[in-house]
Amino acid sequence: MRAVDIIRAKRDGERLSTPAIADFVQGVTSGAWPDYQIAALLMAIVWRGMDAAETTALTQAMVDSGRRVDLSGLPGPRVGKHSTGGVGDKVSIVLAPIVAACGVTVPKMSGRGLGHTGGTLDKLEAIPGFRTALDLDAFRAALAAHGCAIIGQTADIAPADKALYALRDVTATIESVPLIAASVMSKKIAEGSDALVLDVKCGRGAFMKTYDEARALAQALVEIGEGAGIRTEACITRMDAPLGRAIGNALEIRECIDLVHGRGPADLEALITYLAARMLCLGGVAPAEDAAAARVREAVASGAAAARLAAMIAFQGGDAGVVAEPDRLPMARERATVSSPRAGVITQMDAEIVGRTSVVLGAGRARKGDAVDPAAGVRLLRVVGDRIDAGDPIFELHASDAARLAEAETMVRSSLVIDDEAPAATSVVLGRVSAAGEWRA
Amino acid sequence: MRAVDIIRAKRDGERLSTPAIADFVQGVTSGAWPDYQIAALLMAIVWRGMDAAETTALTQAMVDSGRRVDLSGLPGPRVGKHSTGGVGDKVSIVLAPIVAACGVTVPKMSGRGLGHTGGTLDKLEAIPGFRTALDLDAFRAALAAHGCAIIGQTADIAPADKALYALRDVTATIESVPLIAASVMSKKIAEGSDALVLDVKCGRGAFMKTYDEARALAQALVEIGEGAGIRTEACITRMDAPLGRAIGNALEIRECIDLVHGRGPADLEALITYLAARMLCLGGVAPAEDAAAARVREAVASGAAAARLAAMIAFQGGDAGVVAEPDRLPMARERATVSSPRAGVITQMDAEIVGRTSVVLGAGRARKGDAVDPAAGVRLLRVVGDRIDAGDPIFELHASDAARLAEAETMVRSSLVIDDEAPAATSVVLGRVSAAGEWRA
Repeated sequence: MRAVDIIRAKRDGERLSTPAIADFVQGVTSGAWPDYQIAALLMAIVWRGMDAAETTALTQAMVDSGRRVDLSGLPGPRVGKHSTGGVGDKVSIVLAPIVAACGVTVPKMSGRGLGHTGGTLDKLEAIPGFRTALDLDAFRAALAAHGCAIIGQTADIAPADKALYALRDVTATIESVPLIAASVMSKKIAEGSDALVLDVKCGRGAFMKTYDEARALAQALVEIGEGAGIRTEACITRMDAPLGRAIGNALEIRECIDLVHGRGPADLEALITYLAARMLCLGGVAPAEDAAAARVREAVASGAAAARLAAMIAFQGGDAGVVAEPDRLPMARERATVSSPRAGVITQMDAEIVGRTSVVLGAGRARKGDAVDPAAGVRLLRVVGDRIDAGDPIFELHASDAARLAEAETMVRSSLVIDDEAPAATSVVLGRVSAAGEWRA
Repeated sequence: MRAVDIIRAKRDGERLSTPAIADFVQGVTSGAWPDYQIAALLMAIVWRGMDAAETTALTQAMVDSGRRVDLSGLPGPRVGKHSTGGVGDKVSIVLAPIVAACGVTVPKMSGRGLGHTGGTLDKLEAIPGFRTALDLDAFRAALAAHGCAIIGQTADIAPADKALYALRDVTATIESVPLIAASVMSKKIAEGSDALVLDVKCGRGAFMKTYDEARALAQALVEIGEGAGIRTEACITRMDAPLGRAIGNALEIRECIDLVHGRGPADLEALITYLAARMLCLGGVAPAEDAAAARVREAVASGAAAARLAAMIAFQGGDAGVVAEPDRLPMARERATVSSPRAGVITQMDAEIVGRTSVVLGAGRARKGDAVDPAAGVRLLRVVGDRIDAGDPIFELHASDAARLAEAETMVRSSLVIDDEAPAATSVVLGRVSAAGEWRA
């Protein structure tokens, strides 16, 4: 089948055969498909969608474009985790050592921040000396020694996905459930886990704005994972306001250290406990969620999780002393406090705007390859639901360059809605999709 | 506005502003838009469409990407003609000299054949010596001397359209009413006519399969033309079976010579008389269609049209002797006759299949830049509506290479439907769209 015929078939709403999809993905990897034909097919997929069989074939072809990590020699169940990306989402950095301390191996390949969301690799690199560019042998050695490691994707993991993502970014073809699902799952399948817990973000600061959209993505992800023989659960969690109280690389590592010691913000603690418990259940080391959650709390209370985090940091070349002394982390020279213009209750704090504020301060990147400032970011002194007086400090802005503070202050103010009435209490976990069906909170 | 934002807007079904469309077309011409972004936007346009204002802006930007021919010094009204392309459609070659003989200047830029349809330039080049690559000065001189000329588009006519068309061809983005309409009209507007008669083909052998589809294209074409200050009519005509009895370059020129002498096939004579009469009406040299048709018949009967054809051929370097002696045209060495497998009435002869048969014989090209064989083609010994006996010859295949005959024979047989009952009589002109509205036959 010629490329133009494959494009035409999808344009006309037809199902693409598995060989046609394999031909496309091979063409992406080898360069046999020129970029303009890839772009046309991507837009046709955004338009017409892909069914479960097509999405699975696309994912498998992207896995096959590179290497699949073999973790079969490692002890214990291997359970991966992935989040679709939120503001203040530092969950993996805390989750991996907690879950590893409970006897489940957590092989984690992460990404960098782009746009308004931060990236796990950027956060870890705020720890002096921390290296995320481990090769696969070092990755296996880290997992064997400590049960967890967080590294950047190696070049041979799903190279077709890398090429497609770069093109999607500049052709307005990011926003497609099958393309997103295949991109996420190709990397997770290649990563070598036996089971996967996915965190699908939903709300104002996420790509999926509504629960129904998030559920559609969750279902696609679970279908692909199960189709590839990987037990997969997708949790749907709230992303309206930032998670926790810190946005920005070193600031978030400080919060991770608080969390691993059991003194972190309640929303993050609840989310991490929930996701960790699901990973223990999926890994088969706990019989049910309640028992799993109890083991998770014990791993934190006993100091086992903190020790595991320190070991992971040390193995990856970082200064493990930060776990006991967070002040070793970089700190910003320039700070500004943003206060409330009125009395009332904070009913909204727009995660996307706060995320973009942290980029303005230097914590993120507008373009791939930009450098990030480890010290820059935003601390939330108050959060949604807090009652405040006029003049109460709400945000603390951190930057290395004072010139950035003024723009950031105007921007971050626009994230706030202050009202007279308190908002209804909400829970962070909204639902979960697995092979067994949907559970809704 | 960045390219990716323009693509995203169209993907989401938004109207593109005139400056955004101009930016896109300038980007196509200058190379500032990479092919993959052009391809993504084209697919989004196929998906979401364009309204009249967007299509007009796209057309105007494509005109402005090159030169607009100035024919203002020439005598008489200047009326252009364009067909959306059919099999056996040699109308322009007869129409131009007839209409010129009636006092209307016909400036015609034509294209080459691609796929199953032939091209006017390829047909004319079957005349020994005929040159279609005239520059604009020679074009004006030909029009001044004889009132008609048929040349290839010069490189400076709508260059953005050329670039876009090449990309559409390989990205399955040909089939879009606004893209087709803008492509046709950008070239016609640049051609310098005051008025235009368009022949929108409809049926099995045309891109527009149904009357409604053809009307939608006709309306888009008329809207653009009138918006650019050019009086425009779009006639909707039948393209189920091939037009006339000859398909292939030299074979069609022979048929043109028959037609200009008043001894051509009835379907083509009716179509040419109709379109020529509309051109006389639009050019203001005849008060109404009946009077215009009478003048057209007189131009043929008097020999004025034949003389004008000979003059045009001579001006463009061709052997004008072919008008009196068609046997000077190239003739194929190899022939085969295809006979009817049964008795009955021919109720269908699929134009697209007959067109593809002529390509197999060598008359057309599968790829741009391929050479064509002027002598190859198909003669129809019988046509739709003819009653036949088993063994009656129906097709005569012409080729330079006997090896091509067998594949062509199998293919051309599949174009036929033979039944017991005669089909209902049909007329070639189905309707017409103009600024005054729709007229339906």
